[in-house]
Amino acid sequence: MKQSALILANGLFDSVFAKTTHGLIRGPSRYEIIGVIDPTYAGKDTGVVLDGHHRGIPFFSTVSEALAHVEPTHCVIGIATVGGILPDALKMDLLAAASAGLTLVNGLHQLLSQDQSITEKATGGIIDLRKPLPASELHFWTGEIFSVPAPRIAILGMDCAIGKRTTAMLLQTEFKNQNMHAEVIYTGQTGWLQGLKYGFIFDSTLNDFVSGELEHAIVSCYRETSPDVILLEGQSALRNPSGPAGSELICSAQSRGVILQHAPARTHYEDFEHLDGCTLPSLTDEIKLIRLLGSDVWGISLFTQGLTKPQSTEIVEQLQVDHQIPVVRPLEDGVKGIVDEIVKRLRL
Amino acid sequence: MKQSALILANGLFDSVFAKTTHGLIRGPSRYEIIGVIDPTYAGKDTGVVLDGHHRGIPFFSTVSEALAHVEPTHCVIGIATVGGILPDALKMDLLAAASAGLTLVNGLHQLLSQDQSITEKATGGIIDLRKPLPASELHFWTGEIFSVPAPRIAILGMDCAIGKRTTAMLLQTEFKNQNMHAEVIYTGQTGWLQGLKYGFIFDSTLNDFVSGELEHAIVSCYRETSPDVILLEGQSALRNPSGPAGSELICSAQSRGVILQHAPARTHYEDFEHLDGCTLPSLTDEIKLIRLLGSDVWGISLFTQGLTKPQSTEIVEQLQVDHQIPVVRPLEDGVKGIVDEIVKRLRL
Repeated sequence: MKQSALILANGLFDSVFAKTTHGLIRGPSRYEIIGVIDPTYAGKDTGVVLDGHHRGIPFFSTVSEALAHVEPTHCVIGIATVGGILPDALKMDLLAAASAGLTLVNGLHQLLSQDQSITEKATGGIIDLRKPLPASELHFWTGEIFSVPAPRIAILGMDCAIGKRTTAMLLQTEFKNQNMHAEVIYTGQTGWLQGLKYGFIFDSTLNDFVSGELEHAIVSCYRETSPDVILLEGQSALRNPSGPAGSELICSAQSRGVILQHAPARTHYEDFEHLDGCTLPSLTDEIKLIRLLGSDVWGISLFTQGLTKPQSTEIVEQLQVDHQIPVVRPLEDGVKGIVDEIVKRLRL
Repeated sequence: MKQSALILANGLFDSVFAKTTHGLIRGPSRYEIIGVIDPTYAGKDTGVVLDGHHRGIPFFSTVSEALAHVEPTHCVIGIATVGGILPDALKMDLLAAASAGLTLVNGLHQLLSQDQSITEKATGGIIDLRKPLPASELHFWTGEIFSVPAPRIAILGMDCAIGKRTTAMLLQTEFKNQNMHAEVIYTGQTGWLQGLKYGFIFDSTLNDFVSGELEHAIVSCYRETSPDVILLEGQSALRNPSGPAGSELICSAQSRGVILQHAPARTHYEDFEHLDGCTLPSLTDEIKLIRLLGSDVWGISLFTQGLTKPQSTEIVEQLQVDHQIPVVRPLEDGVKGIVDEIVKRLRL
């Protein structure tokens, strides 16, 4: 039987901080989602608030209100917080869920298993997704990646919180619609929460083992599932000063192609709008950089926040002319154009 | 009083695996080095074997032989091992040192403090340099770097084990010779062993905090010492598939310029000579990549292993013509040419 979960969104549902919650509502999800705690929208349907599509998953004001209506087995923290720290309000919700015997699932850097006030109440257990593994349980890169025949496609982005994971999941579904088998390698806690089997939590891994864990996930995935293509969820951005990432996906995973998430209306790296030095680079420059790193951009996927529909339509058309590759708005139009391009280039 | 140390080189003195030992013999060193254990060269002088310069630091066959002649306070593991694992022979040496009351200093991923057979003998204590810090003790990147007036220069390399740290230390000395104050930010355990105060161990840091720890080290260094220039020790190489690194030094530390270590005779990434996919990229391409990342190469420093003196002389001349920047053989000729260039570009 599928386990079921309440998600804590802590008043942040309508922000990028709740991207984990959004992903779990869109699905897929490791747990059946049966409610989201966010007093701002209590009484409404989460899907309707997210994107206008009713999904039968209600908002509740508090954990105790939810528990009067539904019987979850798990309680998932569905938001990111500044510094990965647990805010007090969220802790109250967690204590209520713990007291009701729910298993707590936490993707923050701050570990619940190290907070005695929580552990003593959490009879249902705690899953700390970002608990670092010791070096003895991690893999070094060996070069075995060169013997994996399934091509890798990296989903990179111009920034954090720009839709990389969502596009990866949509690509997987579209491959399935076309009778092909794509696997997604997760690199963040949300991917694991969405039920993905192969991957690792990029940002809570000791740096020396990032490339090895990535390679190990890909090798394991190929051995056990023999997919036609392996999609790699990117993190951050190649030049994001708060933590550049992505070259591992190109160099260590030997990605054949890159799908690049782009947010035309965004001017600065997420959370650093106040810093002149944190303006986003140009798309053209980013494509050059990806080529120098050893891969190439095969498609562009737009994060359309801040754009009207006519604006994004114009941008799609212009970028297709400029770069001669498919450009899609994944949530609005789907990702068929990009899958078709990947299939053509890989001769799948 | 300066503490003194024996170094364990475990039969590997004459290899890049012993680069920590080489650095400590060349100096500076946090501890006074009074002997190196390596039976291959027992009875000889370490400096003479290293580079022909007598330094009065003898080789010994075993720890017990050494302890009959010298009285160290510390015993330092001076080699890197495959996978960061402790070989049995090395463990025997460590047990002998522990039994004599010496403090054990370990830069391997495998932690001595987790090996009961060692801890129960180590009455002098254990320093595990690569013991990971928990997230709660680490820093996120904040952008405070933009308020540090001292310019940063990154010492990057085309590969691992190519002389980046050595060049950084030589640059610091040459700045001092010219009456300027340069600080080196260490990113590996050897830098710490050489007595550097500011830095962190790059590869045993949780990935999400690498950029923040780098920024924090630079900010602390500037606040406390106000140097004219801050030199950043690079790790690995920008496209090394076993663990690409370096974009943090450019993007997160906002380096003005890069000094690039180059090994003309090397064809493949260190330890991956058996893999066709692991050939080194061209120097010209690497310079383009560094420019796209937001900095520029101001000087090239050669690792001359595998080259005759006439060969390296010819390469120095050719590279200077090709790239119009200073090219030096740091160990043979010093690094004055590069310091002069940095001074000119920064108008120090």
